[in-house]
Amino acid sequence: MFSTLRLVCSSISILSMLAVTAAADTRREIQFPDIPGFKTIICDFHTHTVFSDGLVWPTVRMDEAWREGIDAIAVTDHIEYQPHSDYVSTDHNASYEVARPAAQRNKIMLIKGTEITRGTPPGHFNAVFIKDVDPIDTGEFLDAVGAAMKQGGFVFWNHPGWKGPELGRWQEVHQTLYDKKWLGGVEVLNGTSYYPLAHEWCLEKGLAMLGNSDFHQPSMHKRTETGDHRALTLVFAEEFTQDAIQDALNAARTAAWDQNRIIGREEHLAPLFNASIQVFAPHHKDGGSLWIEMKNNSHLTYELKRTGDIGPESITLEADASIIVRLESVERNAEITLEYTAENVLIAPNKGLPVTLTIPKQP
Amino acid sequence: MFSTLRLVCSSISILSMLAVTAAADTRREIQFPDIPGFKTIICDFHTHTVFSDGLVWPTVRMDEAWREGIDAIAVTDHIEYQPHSDYVSTDHNASYEVARPAAQRNKIMLIKGTEITRGTPPGHFNAVFIKDVDPIDTGEFLDAVGAAMKQGGFVFWNHPGWKGPELGRWQEVHQTLYDKKWLGGVEVLNGTSYYPLAHEWCLEKGLAMLGNSDFHQPSMHKRTETGDHRALTLVFAEEFTQDAIQDALNAARTAAWDQNRIIGREEHLAPLFNASIQVFAPHHKDGGSLWIEMKNNSHLTYELKRTGDIGPESITLEADASIIVRLESVERNAEITLEYTAENVLIAPNKGLPVTLTIPKQP
Amino acid sequence: MFSTLRLVCSSISILSMLAVTAAADTRREIQFPDIPGFKTIICDFHTHTVFSDGLVWPTVRMDEAWREGIDAIAVTDHIEYQPHSDYVSTDHNASYEVARPAAQRNKIMLIKGTEITRGTPPGHFNAVFIKDVDPIDTGEFLDAVGAAMKQGGFVFWNHPGWKGPELGRWQEVHQTLYDKKWLGGVEVLNGTSYYPLAHEWCLEKGLAMLGNSDFHQPSMHKRTETGDHRALTLVFAEEFTQDAIQDALNAARTAAWDQNRIIGREEHLAPLFNASIQVFAPHHKDGGSLWIEMKNNSHLTYELKRTGDIGPESITLEADASIIVRLESVERNAEITLEYTAENVLIAPNKGLPVTLTIPKQP
Amino acid sequence: MFSTLRLVCSSISILSMLAVTAAADTRREIQFPDIPGFKTIICDFHTHTVFSDGLVWPTVRMDEAWREGIDAIAVTDHIEYQPHSDYVSTDHNASYEVARPAAQRNKIMLIKGTEITRGTPPGHFNAVFIKDVDPIDTGEFLDAVGAAMKQGGFVFWNHPGWKGPELGRWQEVHQTLYDKKWLGGVEVLNGTSYYPLAHEWCLEKGLAMLGNSDFHQPSMHKRTETGDHRALTLVFAEEFTQDAIQDALNAARTAAWDQNRIIGREEHLAPLFNASIQVFAPHHKDGGSLWIEMKNNSHLTYELKRTGDIGPESITLEADASIIVRLESVERNAEITLEYTAENVLIAPNKGLPVTLTIPKQP
Repeated sequence: MFSTLRLVCSSISILSMLAVTAAADTRREIQFPDIPGFKTIICDFHTHTVFSDGLVWPTVRMDEAWREGIDAIAVTDHIEYQPHSDYVSTDHNASYEVARPAAQRNKIMLIKGTEITRGTPPGHFNAVFIKDVDPIDTGEFLDAVGAAMKQGGFVFWNHPGWKGPELGRWQEVHQTLYDKKWLGGVEVLNGTSYYPLAHEWCLEKGLAMLGNSDFHQPSMHKRTETGDHRALTLVFAEEFTQDAIQDALNAARTAAWDQNRIIGREEHLAPLFNASIQVFAPHHKDGGSLWIEMKNNSHLTYELKRTGDIGPESITLEADASIIVRLESVERNAEITLEYTAENVLIAPNKGLPVTLTIPKQP
Repeated sequence: MFSTLRLVCSSISILSMLAVTAAADTRREIQFPDIPGFKTIICDFHTHTVFSDGLVWPTVRMDEAWREGIDAIAVTDHIEYQPHSDYVSTDHNASYEVARPAAQRNKIMLIKGTEITRGTPPGHFNAVFIKDVDPIDTGEFLDAVGAAMKQGGFVFWNHPGWKGPELGRWQEVHQTLYDKKWLGGVEVLNGTSYYPLAHEWCLEKGLAMLGNSDFHQPSMHKRTETGDHRALTLVFAEEFTQDAIQDALNAARTAAWDQNRIIGREEHLAPLFNASIQVFAPHHKDGGSLWIEMKNNSHLTYELKRTGDIGPESITLEADASIIVRLESVERNAEITLEYTAENVLIAPNKGLPVTLTIPKQP
Repeated sequence: MFSTLRLVCSSISILSMLAVTAAADTRREIQFPDIPGFKTIICDFHTHTVFSDGLVWPTVRMDEAWREGIDAIAVTDHIEYQPHSDYVSTDHNASYEVARPAAQRNKIMLIKGTEITRGTPPGHFNAVFIKDVDPIDTGEFLDAVGAAMKQGGFVFWNHPGWKGPELGRWQEVHQTLYDKKWLGGVEVLNGTSYYPLAHEWCLEKGLAMLGNSDFHQPSMHKRTETGDHRALTLVFAEEFTQDAIQDALNAARTAAWDQNRIIGREEHLAPLFNASIQVFAPHHKDGGSLWIEMKNNSHLTYELKRTGDIGPESITLEADASIIVRLESVERNAEITLEYTAENVLIAPNKGLPVTLTIPKQP
Repeated sequence: MFSTLRLVCSSISILSMLAVTAAADTRREIQFPDIPGFKTIICDFHTHTVFSDGLVWPTVRMDEAWREGIDAIAVTDHIEYQPHSDYVSTDHNASYEVARPAAQRNKIMLIKGTEITRGTPPGHFNAVFIKDVDPIDTGEFLDAVGAAMKQGGFVFWNHPGWKGPELGRWQEVHQTLYDKKWLGGVEVLNGTSYYPLAHEWCLEKGLAMLGNSDFHQPSMHKRTETGDHRALTLVFAEEFTQDAIQDALNAARTAAWDQNRIIGREEHLAPLFNASIQVFAPHHKDGGSLWIEMKNNSHLTYELKRTGDIGPESITLEADASIIVRLESVERNAEITLEYTAENVLIAPNKGLPVTLTIPKQP
């Protein structure tokens, strides 16, 4: 009787939801171009479920990822903090096991992970690309990280500084991890918090920069392409596989993206900008003016401020849209270059990406 | 250490979510006027959590209710169907216990309930206003309903017809329940499905009409006032208490509302329409025309079609908005009445509510 | 002094609007694929300005076209109806002259046109691709159309039937126009009105089907890609030029699009559907089920209903989005074909486009 | 024939627009409470039409005002700048005459006005509540202002500083106007520009603060209540009449509102805040915590920052919504007061309104 009932009931839940929130099953891609040599993969390496202090069943994270255009996701329940344990199993591998079939159906790359949750310092650390959480559930912090590394895992420091700036300092334990080559990255973005100090560490020490949702609640994002999206990590990988993602993390080929801000290294963000923006030859002259179309093929709105001599003082290149810019008193037959800073593309704390808009000669 | 950690971790989850989906904590009221003698209370009597086949922790249902402007809600997990039982407790009272503190903090009336889940016939039945689910978990269907009634519960038939129209018929078992006065109502709306046959039964037999979300997934509704809301039951109650809600259900003083459609009895929907709509004296004459403002103070957009001799062929009175209607060739000093049918206010299957718009004389 | 003031004032108007409605200057493309042999060009052949009974300055139509992703537009002010003539010039060529510089700056193809506005019958007719409106301002209706043809114009019948179905009949005058080869097309869509009779005429007589906004008010459409767009004509042209658009009209290679409905001929809409939809090889097997991703690369949401034996009863392929469809009990190694009707793609009145979804074999 | 045609054509324009942009005819009120002794009236004193350098027919301004919930509006075309004069009448009173019937039908208070448009200094000045623009069209600037005053007009300085801060200074000519009591106010907001210097002048010299759209383009605002609104002036008037509005301007009882910021005097903004916000007695105690509901009955989202000892560090009171605030470790039986600054309510440049949230004792 129950197997019949199961079909029946699962179909009623699907049916009723389809009707009420039809968008649940529809995926809208997040649009970022690839950069030379690498594919741009959209990842969230930090989410929670009812198996620790999250508030959703693990399959919900897979449905959200599909809907929001995410390619790869880790479910990273706390090892040491399971406040629902009166009612929910404390099996550390359960959330991955429950999520896996949904990930396969939804064509999401599900990365196995967990959160090592200690006092500050050291703080909280995610271990991803692991095989089994149980050996990581051990008393000594360094043993726990070591167990993750032994499984071929990648370990990063979560939200440094969320307990106050004074507790978000690089301390001896972090240096130890780093010296052992056990620390692969740091969250420069967690939810809507940006940690500039972490941005600096990553630049200095060659660590991967991560941006993650750290979702506990259900995600409410619907039309992610309008700028309404969770914090995410862009990974620049050689292939569209988990192995290639991990290689990219190890090589620190990442950027972190929240709202309308992207944080990373100039070597990745400059080609990302150049692949995003098309500048066309002037389509019209009128008195001393040239009219030039510019198109942004990405889902990041770029906010530019002029640093050179010509062009409008500021230019907003809206996500997935085009604008027409008017240039006055310029030589028409030469190739024209406009110098700007992309102020919301941070290549270091308080330092926007310098960009050049090259306007082709009229044919 | 863990109690400290608990505070810390719960605050991070709150903080990160506040930032990313700030709307989560904000309530927007659903606007419906009271009707003479009764308060209009917004209720959802059918939702699920991880404790049966739902996909959210019970507190999420309380946060959704706050955000969406709902006054009273029941969590009604299946007794006989608990597909997460490998990982989640099968305690039938657990979802209520977990939800209760969140309901108190959020000022939501939490009604204790459960879903008695049998093959068809009889089908599925919700028991609400109960005290303990355990005695209802019994083999014989009639014993289960009897146990709910013994606790002072109210029992209604869920989604008749979702397994196909032929299975949604009124059968002997339903007559038995009815004869015992154990059947108080029927879902005329479940999610986005409307059951006209159930609408007829309720009219004939004096049963309460219910409209419920039957949510299994997280709710994605944000600005409910724009028409984007779950299926709900409007209860016309003497007071804003659980007892008064139950009295109203017993007296069949309810209506069911989905999207832009409301289903009920003329005796409740006529006063609801009249309390929603204000018609003002003409504010302007121009040649043979009068210009009249009409205002809709409710969150239901009324779609009117003319049945009388004067007025525009159709009038749309958008939710929480005003329009100006032009009347031609009418006597200016008389009180003018316009006869219409509100086509999306169903007082029987395929039968809209007849309404009269009375335009006051110019002062 | 005034030339300085002019610059100053035009810059304040641009500045203040940029700030308040920043989207005004941003173009979002309307996404439709090309079809084999032809480019898909987005056109509106029917708009008004203050030079007849419209309510905007002609340049506004060019700004709207840019913003909304329209490629080519005609401003077609009434010849015989100029209700603003107390204040505004009755020069029939003025709206084109005023609009032209804005069209050039905005990279919009501006097609010169006018509306020949007579009682019913014959009704209203647009003449587009003309050179001078003045010779068309003549007493006899046939002389007016003849004058447009002499200039190399293309003439189509506007909104047949808007004065009531009985006045929307094909009458002697229309047959005369047709026999002279002076009638090139008919509006099957005007604003939100669809004229099924006109759809039939076009199929029978080889006429172009047009869908136009007939805007008099300012356009309020912002994010056209979400389905919120004006009525438009899709033209399937050999090149992206005005001449090629006119050739396509003469060859009746058009379709009319409003909201979520497209009206045309099977020979154009079948390749448009096929170019819009990608079906991928199954990415997952699970028990007896296959999971298949389908992607819609167009801005039309396709509503499919099953006509064959396998597949879900209905499939909604949302605009610019992907879904995953589950197939049960099918042979895995064969190429699978699903037979459906696209119900909102009308190839004749009440007749949806038959489509086949071919699921590639697993590699 | 033409009178018939007129009816026909105007009906087609109405019909087609109703269908395509149905919202055009629907008004949503802007929600601000009255303050003790005064009604809060929503006004825009600065808009343009095709009769100067605007881009819409004057009736469009009346339709926009209706739709956006505006109570009173002035059309203020430039006297000295009429760039459409090749095609459009230069009659300075025409835009008022054309707009008037639409204002009457739409129940909008239409205030007669014009813009006196000179080089800087003196700059641009609006004269409103005038009777005839012609006498104001005179060579000497002071004569022009004098002519407006003679008609009982109210004159204010527009967008001081839009030609650069150095040109936005209070100069001799402004002092002359002020000494003659001819200068009644200054725009502290124009479109999205805020002029802090003007804010200071108004405080020092007792001038009315104005916030106006200065619209030249069509307005794109649809659901103004979500924060998407034009710059506006809130006038605190004794009655809902034009005379009372002018009295209020003369008494400087105004505030200027753009996006999510309001600019004015403490004596008006403090009672506006108090009338907007309801704080309820604690509805729940839990351990050492009290849970308190706060409701914002206005369409301004208030952003509060704590200045006192208790309460959350910051509180966002969203427009037309409620929140629940948790207080820890407070005495339960006393009346509790929370001290905050409303940072987006500017009572002077860089100075937010100090507010007290008084939590009633539990009953």
